Amino acid sequence: MDRAALLQLLVAVREGGVEPAQAAEALAVPAVADLGHARVDLDREARLGVPEVVYGAGKTAAQIADIVGAIAGAGQSVLVTRVAAEVAAVVRGRHPDLAYDQLPRLLWRKAPLAPPPSGPPVAVVCAGTSDLPVAEEAARTLELFGCVARRFTDVGVAGLHRLLAVLPELREAAAVVVVAGMEGALPSVVGGLVRAPVVAVPTSVGYGASLGGLAALLGMLGSCASGITVVNIDNGFGAALAVVRMRQAGWLGRDR
Amino acid sequence: MDRAALLQLLVAVREGGVEPAQAAEALAVPAVADLGHARVDLDREARLGVPEVVYGAGKTAAQIADIVGAIAGAGQSVLVTRVAAEVAAVVRGRHPDLAYDQLPRLLWRKAPLAPPPSGPPVAVVCAGTSDLPVAEEAARTLELFGCVARRFTDVGVAGLHRLLAVLPELREAAAVVVVAGMEGALPSVVGGLVRAPVVAVPTSVGYGASLGGLAALLGMLGSCASGITVVNIDNGFGAALAVVRMRQAGWLGRDR
Amino acid sequence: MDRAALLQLLVAVREGGVEPAQAAEALAVPAVADLGHARVDLDREARLGVPEVVYGAGKTAAQIADIVGAIAGAGQSVLVTRVAAEVAAVVRGRHPDLAYDQLPRLLWRKAPLAPPPSGPPVAVVCAGTSDLPVAEEAARTLELFGCVARRFTDVGVAGLHRLLAVLPELREAAAVVVVAGMEGALPSVVGGLVRAPVVAVPTSVGYGASLGGLAALLGMLGSCASGITVVNIDNGFGAALAVVRMRQAGWLGRDR
Amino acid sequence: MDRAALLQLLVAVREGGVEPAQAAEALAVPAVADLGHARVDLDREARLGVPEVVYGAGKTAAQIADIVGAIAGAGQSVLVTRVAAEVAAVVRGRHPDLAYDQLPRLLWRKAPLAPPPSGPPVAVVCAGTSDLPVAEEAARTLELFGCVARRFTDVGVAGLHRLLAVLPELREAAAVVVVAGMEGALPSVVGGLVRAPVVAVPTSVGYGASLGGLAALLGMLGSCASGITVVNIDNGFGAALAVVRMRQAGWLGRDR
Amino acid sequence: MDRAALLQLLVAVREGGVEPAQAAEALAVPAVADLGHARVDLDREARLGVPEVVYGAGKTAAQIADIVGAIAGAGQSVLVTRVAAEVAAVVRGRHPDLAYDQLPRLLWRKAPLAPPPSGPPVAVVCAGTSDLPVAEEAARTLELFGCVARRFTDVGVAGLHRLLAVLPELREAAAVVVVAGMEGALPSVVGGLVRAPVVAVPTSVGYGASLGGLAALLGMLGSCASGITVVNIDNGFGAALAVVRMRQAGWLGRDR
Amino acid sequence: MDRAALLQLLVAVREGGVEPAQAAEALAVPAVADLGHARVDLDREARLGVPEVVYGAGKTAAQIADIVGAIAGAGQSVLVTRVAAEVAAVVRGRHPDLAYDQLPRLLWRKAPLAPPPSGPPVAVVCAGTSDLPVAEEAARTLELFGCVARRFTDVGVAGLHRLLAVLPELREAAAVVVVAGMEGALPSVVGGLVRAPVVAVPTSVGYGASLGGLAALLGMLGSCASGITVVNIDNGFGAALAVVRMRQAGWLGRDR
Amino acid sequence: MDRAALLQLLVAVREGGVEPAQAAEALAVPAVADLGHARVDLDREARLGVPEVVYGAGKTAAQIADIVGAIAGAGQSVLVTRVAAEVAAVVRGRHPDLAYDQLPRLLWRKAPLAPPPSGPPVAVVCAGTSDLPVAEEAARTLELFGCVARRFTDVGVAGLHRLLAVLPELREAAAVVVVAGMEGALPSVVGGLVRAPVVAVPTSVGYGASLGGLAALLGMLGSCASGITVVNIDNGFGAALAVVRMRQAGWLGRDR
Amino acid sequence: MDRAALLQLLVAVREGGVEPAQAAEALAVPAVADLGHARVDLDREARLGVPEVVYGAGKTAAQIADIVGAIAGAGQSVLVTRVAAEVAAVVRGRHPDLAYDQLPRLLWRKAPLAPPPSGPPVAVVCAGTSDLPVAEEAARTLELFGCVARRFTDVGVAGLHRLLAVLPELREAAAVVVVAGMEGALPSVVGGLVRAPVVAVPTSVGYGASLGGLAALLGMLGSCASGITVVNIDNGFGAALAVVRMRQAGWLGRDR
Repeated sequence: MDRAALLQLLVAVREGGVEPAQAAEALAVPAVADLGHARVDLDREARLGVPEVVYGAGKTAAQIADIVGAIAGAGQSVLVTRVAAEVAAVVRGRHPDLAYDQLPRLLWRKAPLAPPPSGPPVAVVCAGTSDLPVAEEAARTLELFGCVARRFTDVGVAGLHRLLAVLPELREAAAVVVVAGMEGALPSVVGGLVRAPVVAVPTSVGYGASLGGLAALLGMLGSCASGITVVNIDNGFGAALAVVRMRQAGWLGRDR
Repeated sequence: MDRAALLQLLVAVREGGVEPAQAAEALAVPAVADLGHARVDLDREARLGVPEVVYGAGKTAAQIADIVGAIAGAGQSVLVTRVAAEVAAVVRGRHPDLAYDQLPRLLWRKAPLAPPPSGPPVAVVCAGTSDLPVAEEAARTLELFGCVARRFTDVGVAGLHRLLAVLPELREAAAVVVVAGMEGALPSVVGGLVRAPVVAVPTSVGYGASLGGLAALLGMLGSCASGITVVNIDNGFGAALAVVRMRQAGWLGRDR
Repeated sequence: MDRAALLQLLVAVREGGVEPAQAAEALAVPAVADLGHARVDLDREARLGVPEVVYGAGKTAAQIADIVGAIAGAGQSVLVTRVAAEVAAVVRGRHPDLAYDQLPRLLWRKAPLAPPPSGPPVAVVCAGTSDLPVAEEAARTLELFGCVARRFTDVGVAGLHRLLAVLPELREAAAVVVVAGMEGALPSVVGGLVRAPVVAVPTSVGYGASLGGLAALLGMLGSCASGITVVNIDNGFGAALAVVRMRQAGWLGRDR
Repeated sequence: MDRAALLQLLVAVREGGVEPAQAAEALAVPAVADLGHARVDLDREARLGVPEVVYGAGKTAAQIADIVGAIAGAGQSVLVTRVAAEVAAVVRGRHPDLAYDQLPRLLWRKAPLAPPPSGPPVAVVCAGTSDLPVAEEAARTLELFGCVARRFTDVGVAGLHRLLAVLPELREAAAVVVVAGMEGALPSVVGGLVRAPVVAVPTSVGYGASLGGLAALLGMLGSCASGITVVNIDNGFGAALAVVRMRQAGWLGRDR
Repeated sequence: MDRAALLQLLVAVREGGVEPAQAAEALAVPAVADLGHARVDLDREARLGVPEVVYGAGKTAAQIADIVGAIAGAGQSVLVTRVAAEVAAVVRGRHPDLAYDQLPRLLWRKAPLAPPPSGPPVAVVCAGTSDLPVAEEAARTLELFGCVARRFTDVGVAGLHRLLAVLPELREAAAVVVVAGMEGALPSVVGGLVRAPVVAVPTSVGYGASLGGLAALLGMLGSCASGITVVNIDNGFGAALAVVRMRQAGWLGRDR
Repeated sequence: MDRAALLQLLVAVREGGVEPAQAAEALAVPAVADLGHARVDLDREARLGVPEVVYGAGKTAAQIADIVGAIAGAGQSVLVTRVAAEVAAVVRGRHPDLAYDQLPRLLWRKAPLAPPPSGPPVAVVCAGTSDLPVAEEAARTLELFGCVARRFTDVGVAGLHRLLAVLPELREAAAVVVVAGMEGALPSVVGGLVRAPVVAVPTSVGYGASLGGLAALLGMLGSCASGITVVNIDNGFGAALAVVRMRQAGWLGRDR
Repeated sequence: MDRAALLQLLVAVREGGVEPAQAAEALAVPAVADLGHARVDLDREARLGVPEVVYGAGKTAAQIADIVGAIAGAGQSVLVTRVAAEVAAVVRGRHPDLAYDQLPRLLWRKAPLAPPPSGPPVAVVCAGTSDLPVAEEAARTLELFGCVARRFTDVGVAGLHRLLAVLPELREAAAVVVVAGMEGALPSVVGGLVRAPVVAVPTSVGYGASLGGLAALLGMLGSCASGITVVNIDNGFGAALAVVRMRQAGWLGRDR
Repeated sequence: MDRAALLQLLVAVREGGVEPAQAAEALAVPAVADLGHARVDLDREARLGVPEVVYGAGKTAAQIADIVGAIAGAGQSVLVTRVAAEVAAVVRGRHPDLAYDQLPRLLWRKAPLAPPPSGPPVAVVCAGTSDLPVAEEAARTLELFGCVARRFTDVGVAGLHRLLAVLPELREAAAVVVVAGMEGALPSVVGGLVRAPVVAVPTSVGYGASLGGLAALLGMLGSCASGITVVNIDNGFGAALAVVRMRQAGWLGRDR
């Protein structure tokens, strides 16, 4: 709000045209739950369409349980990523309504009023069996936030016909999340075959010159297929959120 | 197409239910213009919605002119990226209807039948004046492929109020391309403030520990704001294409 | 198949000159065993001469056992790389006819109809005792796929006479796989002494500036001996497969 | 001391104007406690204002206990960084008056005559809950050496209002230590909002492209906010000491 | 400002206790000069004590001249860093009152009302003659913003007595900026000898394993002397600003 | 030669069964042309089947001309790589019978008695037009040393049908050299489709995260297609020599 | 031996002037103990003055015991580096006369006839207590191979007087091994104070930007003190051997 | 000097047993020529045996000429490294008695009283013709400081017999400087064949994965030949100085 508009608003408050409460609403900073060790951003769902998602690594079970309590208490969906099984067990001791899946190491609870998944499918394509945990992190996150996820596993480029066999289905997807380690070639090939957005997720699968996923990451960034975007290594969650953002923008778009 | 479906199709051809030409259409590999030094993918527009875009670096003016001729001859939009001014001059000697802009080093021609830009605006946000060439590459590419681009220049995080001042406009955008060098912090801040897709473009602006854009790239990949995606360093073109892909998917989506 | 040839084929099908089943064979995508967590490429042996080899790292014992079942069920040779002893034990519980060797961490079974190793010897040269697991991965893989492997252990360049002593034998080999860690100098020396193909395998043996095998890898890539090729760090399997490819090409060559 | 001044001093000693003991004081090298495995710099407190702080990593409990004995025996404050809990237990067996805090892994004892914390507050700002151990290392070190530390936890840039909410308090601080992992954007934002010194501490929080804290480090070094300084990854202790140095300089300054 | 305080303020406006203009002052976003290619942060001097400093690299002379005009027009000090001589000549054609020094590549003008340098000296210590441009960038920036800079050139650790000879003077400084390339050992040595803040500036002087300044940077970050802080490679300007921040904090401190 | 065999030979010499000259032949070190600045390895052709190839970078025209003279004087084929046009002109002033091609920067002369190219074709596959210089270096080197090279240009994975269109021809090749920059995905795709040896050549085509060809190199090394080998970035020459080595080994093989 | 000399020798053999056994001695390749998993270079002591030293990492206890047996059986000194305590226990079960020291992880036995340490002292200087294992590896190796080692522990540059206090002793040393982690500044300082050879050993002591010793390594390589040489990270053994080489050369020198 | 000794000295001064001038000599800091832009360490020759050598890169011709004047004026040998031809011309305009050699880019003048080269030869071995500038920098530096240098050019490991041919001469050398780029394998091979000290110099010769000499550097550091030491990339000068240090130590040794 620039200075002129602000002055105008405040004059209106003075003159009674605008109620103080209304003006406060327009100017107020959003509420935050301060837990001492964390400030939970309860405004985030209103602001971004998705509540604060908790990064579980490096946090104690007690810290996670506190944060989960604050988010759930506000009636929002809960998602904690990168949670080890033993940590999850402790947290679920305090929050028994949470679900946990060990493959993608996710801990979550759908908000009571959240609608079921709907809309066009999002493809989650995975190059090899070893990449499954990351792909599943993406697929589950998509489903938690209302998207329909369709999984395509082990369709790496070394056996191209496996990919070509599912191409018609991929072409029906509104977006494609492509998960691949090693040389990370799959997004380039997919990107040259579909017109939908392609979000590439490099994984740390591989050894030696794969450099813990850096080779796949660099390859995806330098892809010769245009318009592919990339997220961090093993970040299936982030790729799903990127698609959720697209969906929100489209929905807004339809309203305009 | 799996083996059963294929057999079914071929039986139908044998029995006359399907014309050979129809079947050929379904099975055919697309045409390619073979120039000796290049095989121009004239099918790409039909397949991906966007024609083949020419990567100008490392090609001679003669090679570029030949490729441009093949694409334009097929009635498609022409875009060549990373073209030095002297190379552009030679190419335009053979193709006078091409436009050239030295700031983003783009050479292009809109297809005769291409519709004008329309739809919700896409914000192109740029952290500093030195990042302008990359931002302009993104904005022009968006416009060439039918999007409305709105430019926000020099709103880096060191003077946060400059960003907050334009926040209402950013929140109206259907997608935000964020271009930043040095520490690349801007996409994280923007991503925490808007719900639309954020495509981050690191630039090579900076020195020393900026490592030619790697610091910004790594920072953007590790962003604490969820759902941000990243493209290669200085790749304004790629970010624009990512948005074009989103738009295509949304349009299809609306039809379903 | 280009469009004209395709049309011709389909017209022939229509006119009865070609049977639908024949045409299907020419056009069909190959069969795949879909196990849910994996799509096993059963066509690979027909296509490449070598069946799909399973990368064991990052897969559960159950997943490996399923995949092994699919490959063995198709009558093909089984090879699983990078299998820990405890994983191997579980898999062998379900597939007792598999062999396991802990040094190279390989799990395998020769196909029933596979011929015994034959042809000219392939030398597997190893710079130090610590490099043995990788060298053995190469040698066993060669033997599984029909090559005669001859092992030369601990002939590093710091005691050059050890290498010179075996030079006549090396010169008889049809190909030389050279396995070395630390500075990776051995392939350059061997490459200057023999005329056969040299496939260099850097290993992660070393510490500090060896950077987990990167120093050896970079050194081998920059070798001053011409025509040496390189595979990933610790990838003895890959080097063996490269030789198997050479053998297949030569065999085809003889037929022509 | 240059040669002329030295000669003058020595002539004065010869002539009796200066006592030998006085001259010795001016020229002497400082005392050191030689423990065999360590030479403890007991002169450091007199020279730098802060006693030698022990880097605990890579030292045995016995070595640490010896060194602690030497420092405490000289009446100085004791601080040992990066001490695992089991090591701390052994050391405290020999020095029961030491305190230990597991979160920042610090072991310490305030010197008997050390004054309590005083002066303007120093803000310790921390981007996320996972960064707490490093932030606490900074805050405790500040307090041990006489500064008033004020903690601001979990104010990362993805929820900017959390930071803006505490901005007035930040602006009151005489210095700001900013602790952040992942993309390390927080110091840039803080640096653009406060005029006090900002010492940035990258943390190893993050994964993949965060490269163990390197991404945050590089980002902070390339910050577009002017005058920010940086310490090593996870080095909360070092950031605190940098502020202690500033404080000492200011105090001297006031005297002049 | 939290919601309660905000409401209280607005009620006060409504009731007449606070004038709208007063409230606007407290809430307003600061003014910005929008030049199209740049948004100059004219509020920065009020906010941070130092006006916006222009990063000259990657900007055209025309862009720089425009920005300089906006800053000078607001009566603030002008500083542009990394300006090539030919660019400086063009800018000075439009702004003849600017000074330029080719060694540090700085372009500047002191604000009309700015006070002369004063206060305790700041030492700028430089390891070798080749590091002079960076050291001079630091020294000049210090002087422009009111500090007294004292230069100590070519006192690298290979001839330690050169450093020890100036130690008494270094110990009088309120802060020490240490500029060094190659192995960057000088800050560690200085940091062990003085109690004032030490800001280390690695330079790109060196070759081969110096990696363009990275070796010096990493060395300074890992310094065994406690409390040293580091800025980007060749960033003499940033080191000076860090000291200016310290000075401002001290001055405020004295007021409290 | 081991000690026993050596003793036996020498006894034979003593006893007259072997002439000294014969023994000398068996034991002698090979001749070398010592030019002062170079020792040309004239024995290499006899030893490795290919004469010494001159690495042109970093050598003066005079040095190259001298070395060429020595090799040509021995009746061997001449090949100099990485020769700038102006250097080539000087060398050809002294050796007018050399040919030069500016695209691959090669300078060469076929040995008078060398047979023409023959045998099964070797495919040289190139991902994009910008990779042509490297591909041409490979193709020409193959031809110089007697192989039949077949070129396939601009068949990158972003338009997969371009590759599939030439697949039947690729499958006829005895070996495939695959040249690709950017993400370097092409060798993985080719390796999954052909059974012949695949030698991958990463190129420095690309920018930003392509890191001068490192991304392509790392990707190729981590390829999920088995048995692919890799040479240095832009090293078309080395890939060709690797194929020449294979050919030599096959020829020997046929004789046994 | 060049061809002429060789011919001359062989003619001499023919004519009886040289005995075959003598000639064999001059020409023979040295004996090697082939253990299957290792080829022990028993000639090395005669050739290089120091027997083969066993790199213990990556070898089994059984392999080490075999190799030790071969070396000891030839009457040579035994040294095995990087041996874990549990491995050492097994090896000593078979070779009870071996000594083991856990700090430097060395396993050794002096050859029966080896003379005691003698000659001028070699200084082993160590920056911090955490660097002791590496320093001790150097000192013990020196002693095993006949040098007098004098240890100087914990004399890092942050407390320079500790170093200056021992400077007279350092200046008496015939060579100085300097062991340091973190920023690795100590060799530069020492190199500027003594005229003897300085061999620098970077250690992996440090964290974050120390990059496992790379920062110290790079710093030492770029040292501004002339004539310092460097060995691999943590390679105390290698530094000692470098001094042993110098000693051998000097001894030869005295004879001439 | 410790406190007791110091006190004793000063008492002796007081009592007349020691003259003040004598004591001053023992305690004084050495003289330095302060040129403003440089502090020339004129004490270095007395302290280290070798005068200060000027690093020419990054210095102006005027600065170099001033420094040369100071060193020459003190009667010491002058050596400036990395001097471009045009800079050298300017410096020689002021100091016509300097010699310049463009190949190693050295500018020098032998001190009037310096003795001619003498003693056992030092071998300077060079892998390829492209490494000559670095090797020549080493050889000339050796000669300037009194060593006899013997050059062996182009003896890389790809043609091993070239090295073996000169082995007898190498074995006569008191030290061997080995200069190599690309994979840097030569020092390992030489180190396994000679007992003298081996100083390895990696060069920036090579491309792609050679990484500007880093591959050679890393390889040399990880050499499997024991006791090899390494200097910075292209640092022929440093290798020579390392040998000069060895020589000085040996000479001192003989005196004891």
